[in-house]
Amino acid sequence: MHFQISVIGASEPTDEAIYMAEDVGRGLALRGVALVTGGLGGIMEAACRGAKTVGGTTIGILPGSDPEEANKYVDIKICTGIGYARNSIVVKSGSAVIAIDGAYGTLSEIAHALGDNIPVIGLTTWSISRRGEIDRSIVVANDANDAVDKAIEAVQGLR
Amino acid sequence: MHFQISVIGASEPTDEAIYMAEDVGRGLALRGVALVTGGLGGIMEAACRGAKTVGGTTIGILPGSDPEEANKYVDIKICTGIGYARNSIVVKSGSAVIAIDGAYGTLSEIAHALGDNIPVIGLTTWSISRRGEIDRSIVVANDANDAVDKAIEAVQGLR
Amino acid sequence: MHFQISVIGASEPTDEAIYMAEDVGRGLALRGVALVTGGLGGIMEAACRGAKTVGGTTIGILPGSDPEEANKYVDIKICTGIGYARNSIVVKSGSAVIAIDGAYGTLSEIAHALGDNIPVIGLTTWSISRRGEIDRSIVVANDANDAVDKAIEAVQGLR
Amino acid sequence: MHFQISVIGASEPTDEAIYMAEDVGRGLALRGVALVTGGLGGIMEAACRGAKTVGGTTIGILPGSDPEEANKYVDIKICTGIGYARNSIVVKSGSAVIAIDGAYGTLSEIAHALGDNIPVIGLTTWSISRRGEIDRSIVVANDANDAVDKAIEAVQGLR
Repeated sequence: MHFQISVIGASEPTDEAIYMAEDVGRGLALRGVALVTGGLGGIMEAACRGAKTVGGTTIGILPGSDPEEANKYVDIKICTGIGYARNSIVVKSGSAVIAIDGAYGTLSEIAHALGDNIPVIGLTTWSISRRGEIDRSIVVANDANDAVDKAIEAVQGLR
Repeated sequence: MHFQISVIGASEPTDEAIYMAEDVGRGLALRGVALVTGGLGGIMEAACRGAKTVGGTTIGILPGSDPEEANKYVDIKICTGIGYARNSIVVKSGSAVIAIDGAYGTLSEIAHALGDNIPVIGLTTWSISRRGEIDRSIVVANDANDAVDKAIEAVQGLR
Repeated sequence: MHFQISVIGASEPTDEAIYMAEDVGRGLALRGVALVTGGLGGIMEAACRGAKTVGGTTIGILPGSDPEEANKYVDIKICTGIGYARNSIVVKSGSAVIAIDGAYGTLSEIAHALGDNIPVIGLTTWSISRRGEIDRSIVVANDANDAVDKAIEAVQGLR
Repeated sequence: MHFQISVIGASEPTDEAIYMAEDVGRGLALRGVALVTGGLGGIMEAACRGAKTVGGTTIGILPGSDPEEANKYVDIKICTGIGYARNSIVVKSGSAVIAIDGAYGTLSEIAHALGDNIPVIGLTTWSISRRGEIDRSIVVANDANDAVDKAIEAVQGLR
């Protein structure tokens, strides 16, 4: 296996969401998947920390121009200098996306991914309805392991 | 009054949504508001056409590099060359956003706007829930006139 | 005539460059051309001020998210939120580019324009050599009027 | 040593430039530096190929949304979806930039780097003059090894 999966979520998450993100990061790394995040704190940092505990590769796509703004678990630092418009790059650089908790930035990333036909796995995150009908495109995961399994299955299903 | 309001929505909308967009465009122009859209077809074109029937000003923020890709009701053509990442520029360039119908691109623009504290008025568009709770940040409008009124009120409330 | 021309240049220009920019802005407006700039100070502000003295239309493509950062002579405010990456949008939104004075940002905009086959007219600005040979793609203008004439000729030649 | 250096240059280079790019890629990898490029063909591919011959790490910052557009020597694939506006991300993601040969896209990347105070080392590439005076900010290298040495020295000098 040799691909990239993105993990997105709040910069100020709940404790529970932080534990899930760490487990997701570790789970992806154990399966040989490189982790893509926005490179900053909260869910992004927790997922990177999880991946590094088992020697995974972590990629941070930063809003600014300074590699020092990355959290300390980021290996590869991409300095975009385009602010929050970098969200769409985080999403496009994963073959699937796992969304954990999250505020409006996360919702915009989820929508980007769905518009690009990138599978989205959700852990206690947004749900969406269009013109009164529930949209079930976000695949609901029960826990961190389930999210990792479903994301990898989704990527393999695309191939 | 002298400000800009953005209208976003599907490139392949229902007939009903097209009529609403045309009315919204005309209503904004009659109130002296400059109209910002993504400059292409569907809702974007209908809103621009409505604005031009009463001599309004229309701004199209295009994904590509060719001004000729704008619909024929666009006065000011901004060629971004950054593809659908231009969605966040459409949103940021309005003091309020009116969302009509719309697919995932529209949802991503709505989320961008809410994240930037830009008021969003919705006409038969997305509704969103976070962690099981309905998020009422999208102000629901009953018809085109109501959407125009609520958007202008929202901008004046911010000042 | 109904098109847009971009004026680019230093944010901290010489006095001489400011006078030229004001004359260029006025000259473009008198010929019915809408003026595109980066919307901030220096050359950008001087060109907009020149255009407004004769009732022209001015478009400012801003690096940030706040329309208030525009200089006071900007009519249409585009909030990109992508920082200096907005330079390529300034260039792409003109059918020709007039470069006045300028530092590295201006050089990057000139190069973008030449790469996009957009005519570049230079007033006391950069000159470039590739592998030891002078590149004469930047059309040298003698003064503000000459720059306006050459830019409009270039656009008409493309049609 | 643990940092990233960007290599930029023509997509359709001379044979001589291809050899230089391959040597530069290998030289950087041997010094433990991760290589950043735009991920496509020409100089970008040659530098990545050089780095991979000695087991280096290669990062490709792609203009589009499809990781398959990367050349086959790219390990980490960043899909920006913003077209040639991704050039500024290539530059910002290196602590120094080595420019080899190159057309207008390369010149725009050089100018971005100089504007961001990122050291630029040039191998048979552009030279620039501002208002009649030669600008010596591009450090001229004599050959591939010299370019690698000068780039690494420049980064260490910044620390």
